[in-house]
Amino acid sequence: MAKQYVFSFGRTKTDGRGDQRALLGGKGANLAEMTRIGLPVPPGFTISTEVCTYFYENGRKYPAELKDQVAKALARVEKEMGKKFGDAKDPLLVSVRSGARDSMPGMMDTILNLGLNEKTTEAVAEKSGNPRFAWDCYRRFVQMYGDVVMGVQRRKDEHHDPFEHAIETIKKENNAETDLDLTVENLQELVRRFKALIRERTGQAFPEDPEKQLWGAIGAVFGSWNNDRAIVYRRKYGIPHDWGTAVNVQTMVYGNMGDTSATGVAFTRDPATGEKVFYGEYLVNAQGEDVVAGVRTPKPIALLKEEMPKAHKELETVRRTLEQHFKDMQDFEFTIEDGTLYMLQTRNGKRTGLAAVRIACEMVKEGLITEEMAVQRIPADSLTQVLAPVFDRAARDKAVKANRLLAKGLPAGPGAATGKVVFNAEEAVAWANRGEKVVLVRIETSPEDLRGMIAAEGILTARGGVSSHAALVARQMGKICVCGCGDLHIDYGRKQMTVAGRTIKEGDWISIDGTLGEVYEGEIDTAPSEIIQVLIDKTLDPKQSQTYQNFDRLMKWADKYRRLDVRTNADQPGQAANAVAFGAVGIGLCRTEHMFFEGDRIYSVRRMIMAENEEHRRAALEDLLPHQREDFAGIFRAMKGLPVTIRTLDPPLHEFLPHEESAINETAAKLKMSPDDVRRRVNALHEANPMLGHRGCRLGNVYPEITEMQVRAIFEAAAEVMAEGIKVKPEIMIPLVGYPKELALQLDVVNRVAEEVRKATGKKINYLVGTMIEIPRAALVADEIAKYAEFFSFGTNDLTQTTLGMSRDDSGNFLPQYQELDIIPSNPFATIDRTGVGRLMKIAIEESRKTRPDIKLGICGEHGGDPQTVMFCHEIGLHYVSCSPFRVPVARLAAAQAALAEAASRKPAKKSAKGAKKAKKAAGKTAKKRK
Amino acid sequence: MAKQYVFSFGRTKTDGRGDQRALLGGKGANLAEMTRIGLPVPPGFTISTEVCTYFYENGRKYPAELKDQVAKALARVEKEMGKKFGDAKDPLLVSVRSGARDSMPGMMDTILNLGLNEKTTEAVAEKSGNPRFAWDCYRRFVQMYGDVVMGVQRRKDEHHDPFEHAIETIKKENNAETDLDLTVENLQELVRRFKALIRERTGQAFPEDPEKQLWGAIGAVFGSWNNDRAIVYRRKYGIPHDWGTAVNVQTMVYGNMGDTSATGVAFTRDPATGEKVFYGEYLVNAQGEDVVAGVRTPKPIALLKEEMPKAHKELETVRRTLEQHFKDMQDFEFTIEDGTLYMLQTRNGKRTGLAAVRIACEMVKEGLITEEMAVQRIPADSLTQVLAPVFDRAARDKAVKANRLLAKGLPAGPGAATGKVVFNAEEAVAWANRGEKVVLVRIETSPEDLRGMIAAEGILTARGGVSSHAALVARQMGKICVCGCGDLHIDYGRKQMTVAGRTIKEGDWISIDGTLGEVYEGEIDTAPSEIIQVLIDKTLDPKQSQTYQNFDRLMKWADKYRRLDVRTNADQPGQAANAVAFGAVGIGLCRTEHMFFEGDRIYSVRRMIMAENEEHRRAALEDLLPHQREDFAGIFRAMKGLPVTIRTLDPPLHEFLPHEESAINETAAKLKMSPDDVRRRVNALHEANPMLGHRGCRLGNVYPEITEMQVRAIFEAAAEVMAEGIKVKPEIMIPLVGYPKELALQLDVVNRVAEEVRKATGKKINYLVGTMIEIPRAALVADEIAKYAEFFSFGTNDLTQTTLGMSRDDSGNFLPQYQELDIIPSNPFATIDRTGVGRLMKIAIEESRKTRPDIKLGICGEHGGDPQTVMFCHEIGLHYVSCSPFRVPVARLAAAQAALAEAASRKPAKKSAKGAKKAKKAAGKTAKKRK
Repeated sequence: MAKQYVFSFGRTKTDGRGDQRALLGGKGANLAEMTRIGLPVPPGFTISTEVCTYFYENGRKYPAELKDQVAKALARVEKEMGKKFGDAKDPLLVSVRSGARDSMPGMMDTILNLGLNEKTTEAVAEKSGNPRFAWDCYRRFVQMYGDVVMGVQRRKDEHHDPFEHAIETIKKENNAETDLDLTVENLQELVRRFKALIRERTGQAFPEDPEKQLWGAIGAVFGSWNNDRAIVYRRKYGIPHDWGTAVNVQTMVYGNMGDTSATGVAFTRDPATGEKVFYGEYLVNAQGEDVVAGVRTPKPIALLKEEMPKAHKELETVRRTLEQHFKDMQDFEFTIEDGTLYMLQTRNGKRTGLAAVRIACEMVKEGLITEEMAVQRIPADSLTQVLAPVFDRAARDKAVKANRLLAKGLPAGPGAATGKVVFNAEEAVAWANRGEKVVLVRIETSPEDLRGMIAAEGILTARGGVSSHAALVARQMGKICVCGCGDLHIDYGRKQMTVAGRTIKEGDWISIDGTLGEVYEGEIDTAPSEIIQVLIDKTLDPKQSQTYQNFDRLMKWADKYRRLDVRTNADQPGQAANAVAFGAVGIGLCRTEHMFFEGDRIYSVRRMIMAENEEHRRAALEDLLPHQREDFAGIFRAMKGLPVTIRTLDPPLHEFLPHEESAINETAAKLKMSPDDVRRRVNALHEANPMLGHRGCRLGNVYPEITEMQVRAIFEAAAEVMAEGIKVKPEIMIPLVGYPKELALQLDVVNRVAEEVRKATGKKINYLVGTMIEIPRAALVADEIAKYAEFFSFGTNDLTQTTLGMSRDDSGNFLPQYQELDIIPSNPFATIDRTGVGRLMKIAIEESRKTRPDIKLGICGEHGGDPQTVMFCHEIGLHYVSCSPFRVPVARLAAAQAALAEAASRKPAKKSAKGAKKAKKAAGKTAKKRK
Repeated sequence: MAKQYVFSFGRTKTDGRGDQRALLGGKGANLAEMTRIGLPVPPGFTISTEVCTYFYENGRKYPAELKDQVAKALARVEKEMGKKFGDAKDPLLVSVRSGARDSMPGMMDTILNLGLNEKTTEAVAEKSGNPRFAWDCYRRFVQMYGDVVMGVQRRKDEHHDPFEHAIETIKKENNAETDLDLTVENLQELVRRFKALIRERTGQAFPEDPEKQLWGAIGAVFGSWNNDRAIVYRRKYGIPHDWGTAVNVQTMVYGNMGDTSATGVAFTRDPATGEKVFYGEYLVNAQGEDVVAGVRTPKPIALLKEEMPKAHKELETVRRTLEQHFKDMQDFEFTIEDGTLYMLQTRNGKRTGLAAVRIACEMVKEGLITEEMAVQRIPADSLTQVLAPVFDRAARDKAVKANRLLAKGLPAGPGAATGKVVFNAEEAVAWANRGEKVVLVRIETSPEDLRGMIAAEGILTARGGVSSHAALVARQMGKICVCGCGDLHIDYGRKQMTVAGRTIKEGDWISIDGTLGEVYEGEIDTAPSEIIQVLIDKTLDPKQSQTYQNFDRLMKWADKYRRLDVRTNADQPGQAANAVAFGAVGIGLCRTEHMFFEGDRIYSVRRMIMAENEEHRRAALEDLLPHQREDFAGIFRAMKGLPVTIRTLDPPLHEFLPHEESAINETAAKLKMSPDDVRRRVNALHEANPMLGHRGCRLGNVYPEITEMQVRAIFEAAAEVMAEGIKVKPEIMIPLVGYPKELALQLDVVNRVAEEVRKATGKKINYLVGTMIEIPRAALVADEIAKYAEFFSFGTNDLTQTTLGMSRDDSGNFLPQYQELDIIPSNPFATIDRTGVGRLMKIAIEESRKTRPDIKLGICGEHGGDPQTVMFCHEIGLHYVSCSPFRVPVARLAAAQAALAEAASRKPAKKSAKGAKKAKKAAGKTAKKRK
């Protein structure tokens, strides 16, 4: 038997099913499914995606069987409808639409009213008693066909689309205000002019033969799979190019046949809030494109109850049926033709993060879906939206209308912020101290800007990607941030920037949307999310917040299914407490260097760096010790017995030195040195490639007294906090280890100091010592390193930089093009590079277990908060991921999704899962307090 | 039976053999061997290295059997000598010396004259009839024992050694000019004072009991294995700490018993030139330490023929016997006691590279050794000395005496250079153009300095290691270079530097020795090596040069045994021709960027970089095309049909831009731009970590027109040279590939241009396209990359930087300490890191052969000229190594040694060797013209 390429749907025969998205595309599968469950779908058929694949693999030819199968399916539709395609009396008209496996809205082509020609138009005119309707349809069809199938489009030397130009001309000639003022005769003339235009531009006549029209349209739809915008779209959303599209040929129905007709789109629940209300809009006497085009303002669906009560009632039934059947919120299109309801499409509705959580929770309560389904359904990333403060919607709309949208950058820290512009950290602090809300605008940020970033409502940078310093710090602090906004021209000297032809000076208001990457001129009101109000600000009673309760319920379900623990990257007690509120069960990365910038201690740090010998260095370190001890004590208290992984000093020393003239002079004065000496030292510490320079444990090994001070601060703080009756679990992490002995020597320092502190305080502290795996060599010799390491934490930021030989800070010059060119599937600094970096991680795990089977494994790079990476971490058997506090809920959810996906795959990666479980049990360190 | 720890040597019994170096140490094994072959060795015994190991593993205790075995061995010596240890009439005296597997001269302790005490000294006085001799021996013994065994040494608060101080005091008290003026009574008083000193400092009496003395000395020698200088020495020379030392106890003989006694050291051939002459020196009436101490000037060995004809004749026989037996040039110590010759030590003599080659060649001619042995015996690295110009020996000695040695840096380009100091490249060119010899002194060098480096005789830098830009370029060009000379304080502004308290201004003469890393004030005459005169300068008839002929013979033997091909890294026709003269069979790395700095073309390069769009960029590239074509044509001509691997543009673009104010202004004028615009562009291209930035194929993919121009230049040059009847084999190498598609896209460009050139010229060029494997990801996905690559060349410079996360340019701040701390075994930028980088190389090879079993494999990092790395490359089955022209002979020799070592190991790494052979056969591209 010949292969089936064409799948009918209709009253008498429906071949397809809803689960055949891969074969029939989303639209085709759901048209079939709706037909199956008795919803009123105009009959038609779907040409499968396999034809598309065949089409591209065979020089744009079709399988031999196709023609016949299409003819048969068309005949069945004719029979059901009692109409004939091309019939001079009562012609069947069809639409031809694309429909890929995943929705690609607006990317591919659509042809409506196909089957019309001079003759059939007259027939429709007669049959409908509405010649204007008929000729308007024909006019639209010729225009659409001419554009999409025959390729008549605006040339570079033209200002307008030629068809639209013809319409405008005829309107002027006839003093017509709108399209509706054109008469039948005008429309007939317009069709003639369209046809002439087509002949002139293409040298070919517009095909009057409906058969020809049909195959032309089918070819155009398949062809549109590979148009530029479709390719770009697929690249952006990670849709494989070889999936192909299906083509849906369906009987036309008309919402524009008078006041008993209408067309609309609706959602089974509110996609913005998730509320269980019938949500949508419609237009009487209109076609679908009119709703989208926005020429007329559609009415809310509730009004339909009054205008067409019967249809409204039917729609309510449809709404219930759809949700009952599809078990998800549906976004559907309908048309009412002369009082009769037709369903044209349904699909799972897109929704905000807020709505996703509410819908999932309520559907569980309604018994529609299971907890597992709820957990799996919500895109983990969308939770960031639930947590972020937002612009007041009306205020933003007003700003857009007022043309105040200035530029777009990369969405780096979700949420909305508004404030006065300042161009340096000192001003940010000063302005904030006097009660001003500020947005810190920098070309790029560095650790020196940290205090300014803390003081600011939001951060805006001209350079740097989503993993730049600004973005990293912003996410960790839950700050709103837009980065890499290349349109900004910042002039620090004049304290101003120009963008979109406007000049913004220090003190001017701007507003930024870190969820969308937008920058606005002026002030726009914001509000914190309810979840933040409950968990962090504690200004809202949880019982008062439906949103919080849904969120909390979801998180509890997630915790039930996930195997991975979620820790956080935090280096301040406040951050740590926030993370615990968000469900973190420990700190996976506490950077000690951020603390070096607080208050005046930077001068002690600089004194330490400038020291000419060990003795002077020790004296400066002595100054720092009480500060570090205090920092660590604060964190231990905030974490209340949860494990805290503290990384010893990591960045190259020159990061702590002053670079601008004034800062050099100030430092010289503070340190009683000459500015020349300070400058000399700064220059001497300059590095060609600081990422690969004298940093991490290379500092700790060359200057063991630095490690000694830090470790002493940790242990003394631990003893102090233990004396208060609080448990403490420090895990000391040595960064940038590549050679086993680098760790062994640092381990000696740690153990020696631990013993000294034990003797001095009488407190025996339980601690672990481990290392980051962040350079390839460490992964390759992990068996040797594991001899000295009780845990490994994958430092995937640096591991990605070194494995890919790609500087995060400099990759902005080529990564975007690399995504365009399809060289890389996604930003490797956001989502782990499974093939390269991932393989090294697997090697490291395998090697480490040779010498230490129960080694504890985690990840603390920025990737730890990325859902796809969390999935990978689950697969390779890590014990925990660590991410910034505001991404903890995302990671919890993603971890649960990973576990559920594994269970669903029925071929669980048994070995690694088992290994991890065993190892987890053996490590047995992580407190779990889940119900 | 008890384990044997003590091995006797003597007339009546000799347990050990010469091949037991591991067990008996070098000295012990050779004492045994000399005894076996009948040479006059004073009898004694060796305590094996196993005792040393036991000693350290068991808290400095000895095996239970030892005491008894020592006693028995001592008894045998007493019997042979007819003397008793501690005897009051005719006491046996012994020396106790260390002796490790590899010689560690002067690092460990030695005790002489052991067995003397108040009583035995009197006995010796009587027996010898020379009381002064006896008491002088005792004085020396007490001093040595007090120092070495009892630890009486200079305290921090003392200016002199306390024993020496006592000698000086007694000399003053007795108005004695020299030690020889001290009377027997003076010496007796001195011994008393020494003993008092020992008691005062240690609280213990000097042991009079010879038995106690012996065990004290044995313990001290074992203990000295782990003294600081021995540890440092082993670290430096890569001697494992767990080898341990043996202890040799041997009958004392005396060269200081009057004018019929003497002592000396001799070589069986001249260690400096290799000439087959008896070479050495002696002192009449002296002990061994006197020869070394240099208080008296020893006489050349030839004079002994007149002074002691019998002993000299015996020594001549010994010399012949030693070489016949040990099959190598020997360095031996002897003593003539009252006319009787005794042999105290022999070992393979250290020699210069020149001598090594000559001796090996002549020994083959003499039938003493085989060709294989000759090849294996010469340290491959020492060949660089044979090629390097040298300081005139007398001139240098004069400079040292005149205190003109200023500083020491890293020996980065072997040889000697002298010239006037200049501090920038422009001056270097200008001065050289007017006929001055200059040494270019820079803090560090960059590609902008290239022309200056070419113009200079030698290069001296204050910063940067042996793989810094300066060192790399110097080695490639065979330039003399000393780098990383931290004592230099260079002031560009004042055009001067200060070093060792002296100020050297522009135009002052300095001289540098790149073999030793030394910097001298003033001019020192130099001469080119004979091999250079024959092969490169062609100023010397090969028949006239014994040195050249030996070198040539050695190279031919090496070629007979090696499997690896040796190519060269060269980017100028002259360099290429030199490399061919040195035996290179192709170019493994032709960098195209060096060419960008020649003449005025840098402005075209800058115009290309500054271009605002593709069109402008193409126009600038059009300017560069003819220059590049000419460059490549020159290289193809020089290589006469040998394969030439050309790497497309690699460094980040900002390396080509001006950075200093004047250069910016000049560029702006040339490019008709404003200096501000130039500065802006320079700043925009600044990168945080240029090593990991926008470079390599990332440039070629974002700006494919650059690759297009370069490839066009290659193919057009190839067509041009082919038209002259010369064969051309271009191999196009795409740098910095990490993702397979990066290579695939560049491959498309190459193939397209090749086809265009073929059509335009009618010449079909055989070319290969491959990639460098220089970032870890490339190694990890080598199977995918190999789909597009006909060859891989391991770019181990960058692969080391990325795998180790270590910037070559910045590693100077910690690598030296890392070697001190034993974290790394050797500089990973000089010798391949087998464990880390090497593992990635193996992964890459394994993966690549999955998709392309016959892939051609080479290495083109600086490591390619390092003998240990060549060994590794042989082991893992590469087809060739590529190195700088002047290291080609080193690599040829090392490759032969690798092959011979493999054959000798009898467990050849069959699989990889076979794989390589097979692959080599399949690739079958490399012309071999060996006899």
